[in-house]
Amino acid sequence: MSDDQALGITESKEYNTGEWYAEVVQKAGLANYGPDGMSGFIITRPRGYALWEGIQNYLDGQFKATDVQNAYFPLFIPESYLEREKDIVEGFDPEVAWVTHGGNQELEERLAVRPTSESIIAPYMAQWVRSHRDLPLRVNQWCSVVRWEATDTKPFFRTKEFLWQEGHTAHETEEEAYEETMTRLGQYRSLYEDVLAMPVMRGKKPEHDKFPGADTTTTVEALMPDGKSVQAGTSHYLGTSFAAAFDLTYSDEDEEELPAHTTSWGLSWRSLGALIMTHSDDQGLVVPPTIAPEQVVIVPIYQEDTEEKVLDYAEDLREELAEAGVRVELDDRDERNPGFKFNEWELKGVPVRFEIGPHEVDDDEVTVVHRPDGEQAVESRSDVVDAVEDHFDEVYAKLYARAEENLTENVRDAEDRASILGTIGQHGGYVRAPWCGKEECETEIKETISAEIVMVPFEDDEERHHPDVADGCTCAICDDEATETAFFAKSY
Amino acid sequence: MSDDQALGITESKEYNTGEWYAEVVQKAGLANYGPDGMSGFIITRPRGYALWEGIQNYLDGQFKATDVQNAYFPLFIPESYLEREKDIVEGFDPEVAWVTHGGNQELEERLAVRPTSESIIAPYMAQWVRSHRDLPLRVNQWCSVVRWEATDTKPFFRTKEFLWQEGHTAHETEEEAYEETMTRLGQYRSLYEDVLAMPVMRGKKPEHDKFPGADTTTTVEALMPDGKSVQAGTSHYLGTSFAAAFDLTYSDEDEEELPAHTTSWGLSWRSLGALIMTHSDDQGLVVPPTIAPEQVVIVPIYQEDTEEKVLDYAEDLREELAEAGVRVELDDRDERNPGFKFNEWELKGVPVRFEIGPHEVDDDEVTVVHRPDGEQAVESRSDVVDAVEDHFDEVYAKLYARAEENLTENVRDAEDRASILGTIGQHGGYVRAPWCGKEECETEIKETISAEIVMVPFEDDEERHHPDVADGCTCAICDDEATETAFFAKSY
Repeated sequence: MSDDQALGITESKEYNTGEWYAEVVQKAGLANYGPDGMSGFIITRPRGYALWEGIQNYLDGQFKATDVQNAYFPLFIPESYLEREKDIVEGFDPEVAWVTHGGNQELEERLAVRPTSESIIAPYMAQWVRSHRDLPLRVNQWCSVVRWEATDTKPFFRTKEFLWQEGHTAHETEEEAYEETMTRLGQYRSLYEDVLAMPVMRGKKPEHDKFPGADTTTTVEALMPDGKSVQAGTSHYLGTSFAAAFDLTYSDEDEEELPAHTTSWGLSWRSLGALIMTHSDDQGLVVPPTIAPEQVVIVPIYQEDTEEKVLDYAEDLREELAEAGVRVELDDRDERNPGFKFNEWELKGVPVRFEIGPHEVDDDEVTVVHRPDGEQAVESRSDVVDAVEDHFDEVYAKLYARAEENLTENVRDAEDRASILGTIGQHGGYVRAPWCGKEECETEIKETISAEIVMVPFEDDEERHHPDVADGCTCAICDDEATETAFFAKSY
Repeated sequence: MSDDQALGITESKEYNTGEWYAEVVQKAGLANYGPDGMSGFIITRPRGYALWEGIQNYLDGQFKATDVQNAYFPLFIPESYLEREKDIVEGFDPEVAWVTHGGNQELEERLAVRPTSESIIAPYMAQWVRSHRDLPLRVNQWCSVVRWEATDTKPFFRTKEFLWQEGHTAHETEEEAYEETMTRLGQYRSLYEDVLAMPVMRGKKPEHDKFPGADTTTTVEALMPDGKSVQAGTSHYLGTSFAAAFDLTYSDEDEEELPAHTTSWGLSWRSLGALIMTHSDDQGLVVPPTIAPEQVVIVPIYQEDTEEKVLDYAEDLREELAEAGVRVELDDRDERNPGFKFNEWELKGVPVRFEIGPHEVDDDEVTVVHRPDGEQAVESRSDVVDAVEDHFDEVYAKLYARAEENLTENVRDAEDRASILGTIGQHGGYVRAPWCGKEECETEIKETISAEIVMVPFEDDEERHHPDVADGCTCAICDDEATETAFFAKSY
C-alpha cells in the first residue's frame, strides 16, 4: 500500500466534484493517467478493471441468454470503408487515429483505428446472410475503440481510447429490429437498476441528435449527484440504410431479395464512471455488493495477548464465507492498526466490514458495519454467514434509494424559456418541457446555458410526459404546437 | 446456412495440409480473411470466437485462482518508450504499425500500436511498487496486439493482429520469479493437456533464441500432424534487466532499494490454430467436448407419420440435457435431410451426435455417435443423460491418444549432422541430438533444411534428454563437448 493512498480523499464531492472524482479514481486504485505524449489515455488498474469485468459478466450473460454471439473484427478499418459510410451518412467526419506506416513502409491506404465498427462489420454480415433462414443474425464484440477528441481527460467518462461492447444485428422486418433495439435497451436498464443500484430513464434522442444514419436512437440516461445527465448506453434501430449501403440483403420465402433491418447498440466503461460518481463519497469509493471486488472485509482488533484467538476466529470466519461464495478479504496485516484499515477499505469501497475483537470472540458474535452510512449490527457467529446476503441487500437498497431520491427530486417542469433556464441554472437536474420538435428551440437553450435535450420519453411512457402536452399546448420556447416532451439537462 | 459450407471439405489434410487448414477454418465458420488492403487480418466469426472464449475462460480461472489480477493498458505506446526498451535490449527493432495522425493533426511523437506491452506496463508497475509489502505484483491483460510482419496469412497462426494474454509480474527474489515462470508454463501445459486434448513438451529456448532481454525463456511445444512444431505458449524469467531499465525497485525490510525480479508470459490464439490443426480431419473441424460450442447435436430422423413423436422425444431429451448443463443443439430443420445434417455438424466439429428415429422412440433408446471415429453406441433413454459425460470422456481420450501417439512416434534420436538432416527430411517431427550450446551449430542445420532448435529440455527432465549427453559425448554437429540436448524441428 503506497503512502498517497493512505492519506485519504481531500477534495469535496459537493463543492469540487471534478477534482473529487479524479482523486477517488486514483486513490481507490482504479486508474492512472497515461504517460506524457498520451494525454487522453488511462491505465485501468486491477481494482478498476475488476469492476468492468463485473459489468461485462452481467451483460455478456444477458446477451448470450438472448441469442447474441460474440465475435472479433479487426482493430483497423481501411479509409475507403469509412468513406463508404460517409456517403450514406451526411456529415460523418470521424475524428480518428490514423495508421500510416507498417514497420518502415508507408501504407498504400491509411487505416483508421476503429472508432466504431459498423463499416467493417456490415460487409461481413452481408457475406454471411443469404436467405431469411440466416436471420436474425446477432453479433457482439467486446473491444476498445479510439476517438481522437481533444478534451480534458476524465477517466472512464472522457478518454481517447475506451472499452465497450458493440452489438450488431440484422432482421427480416422493422418490427423485429425495433423489438431487438428495445430488448438491448432493457438489458442496459437492468444492468443499472439490478446490478449498479442506479435508477435510469429510458427514452429517445431527438431527431437531430440521433446516431448518424439511424432511424431511431434510444438511450438510458442516469442523473449524477452534481445534476448532470449521463448518456449511459444507446441502442439504435438503423432502418435499412446501412443494409442498403453495404448490400446486406436476404432472399425471402419467395426468393425476393430484400435489404435487412439492422440495429446496433453499445455500452462503454462510461457506465463505470457513472457508477463511481453516483455512489462514492468524501471517504472514497462506494459500490454495491453486487459488483464489489471484495464484498466483505474482516478487520481483526487485538492486543498481543488476544492476537491468536482473534486471528483464529477471523480466519475461520473468512474460510466459511469464502466457501459460501462470498468475496471476502481478511486484513491481518500486523503493521497497520484497525483505524487505518477501516479508512483504507472505506476508500477502496468494500461495502460490508466485519469487526472482530476479543469481545466478539468471547460472545460468539461479529460486528457488521455498512458502507457508506456506518450503520452497525451485531450478528451471532452462527448466523452471520446466512445473514450476509441480507446485509448485502440492505446496502444495495440504501444506495438505490439515495440515487432514486436524487432522480425523483430533480425532475422539474417548466413551461417557458425563462423557467427552463432558471430552473436548470438554479437546481441542475432535468427540466421537462413541452417541445415542438425543432432543433432551433433546443439551440436557444444550449447557447445560453449549455443544457440540451438529453431525452424524449417513449410515446407509451405516459407518466414521463409533461402533463400539458397531451392536453394540447405550445412549445415552451416557440409558439408552435408542442408535439413531445423534452428533457433538458446539462450532460457529461 | 450458406451453400459453400454445405459442400464440405475438398482438400486433404495429409497431402495439402495448408490448403486443407484454410478450408476447415472458413467452412466450419471459424474465420474469414480480411478485406482488400488489409491482408494479414482476419475476422473471427462466432464459432471461432467461442473456442477462444473457452480457452480464455479456462486460463483466466487458473490465473485468478493463483493471485493474478486483470488490468488494461493503452493500445498505443509512445515511440520513446519503445526506444527505452531498445537501449537495454540490443537489436530490438519491432515491426510495428505507427499512428502518426489524430484526426487532422500530425502527432508530435508517433505512437506504436502495441506489439507487446512490457515498455508501458513496467513504468506503471514501478509506480505501484514501493516496498517489499507490495510484492509479488501480478497483472495480466487480454487484448490484441499488432506485429507488422509481411508473411502469408494463416488464420490464428500468422496474422498481423492477434488476440492473446500477456501476464507481467514482479517479485523480491530470483527464486520466486523463477517459480512464477514455471507456474504459468504449467498452466499453459494444463490448458493443452486437460482441455484441448493435446500433449505438449515443456522446455527452454536456446540462449540465442530467448525473448530479447530475458534471462530464461520457457516454452510449451506441440507437434502438429504434418511434423512441424508449434511454440504454443511462452513464459519468461526476465531477471532484473527490465526492472533496472524502468526503475521497478522496492525497499526491502532494511529499507534498502533493490530492483525487482520480473516475469512475463503469453499465450495467443495460435493455441486455437494448433487445436484445429491437431484434431480436425477431411470431414472438417474436430474439437474435444471440453471446449466444443455444442457438445451434443440431436438429429431427428422421421417420415411424415412419425414426425410428431420423434420431435417430441427429441425436444424432451434436449431439455433434459440442457438442464443438466450440457451444451446441446436440436437440429429440427425440416428443409434438410438427416444425411445433410450429419455432414454439416461433422464439418462444424460437434463431438457427439444423438440420432433419434422411430425405432429409438419405440425402444426408449438413443443412438450415440462419436466424432471423429464414427463409433456408435445405443443407450437407453433413461440412462443417456447420465452417460453423456462418459461419452465425452471417451471422445477426449481418443483424441488425446491419437495426438500422443503422433508425438511419441515422432521423437527420434540422431548423433551426427547427416542423420539430423536425413531424419527430419524423411519423417519431420523432432530429432533430439547432443549439442554444444553454440548458435553456429544450429545455423548449419537451419540453412540446409530450415529446421531449428525449438526446445532444450529442463535439466531435471531426465527422460527427455538424449541418453549420450549424461555419459559425456560430443556435439552432433561440431567436435565440442555436448552440454545439452537439442530438439530440432521445423516449426510454424
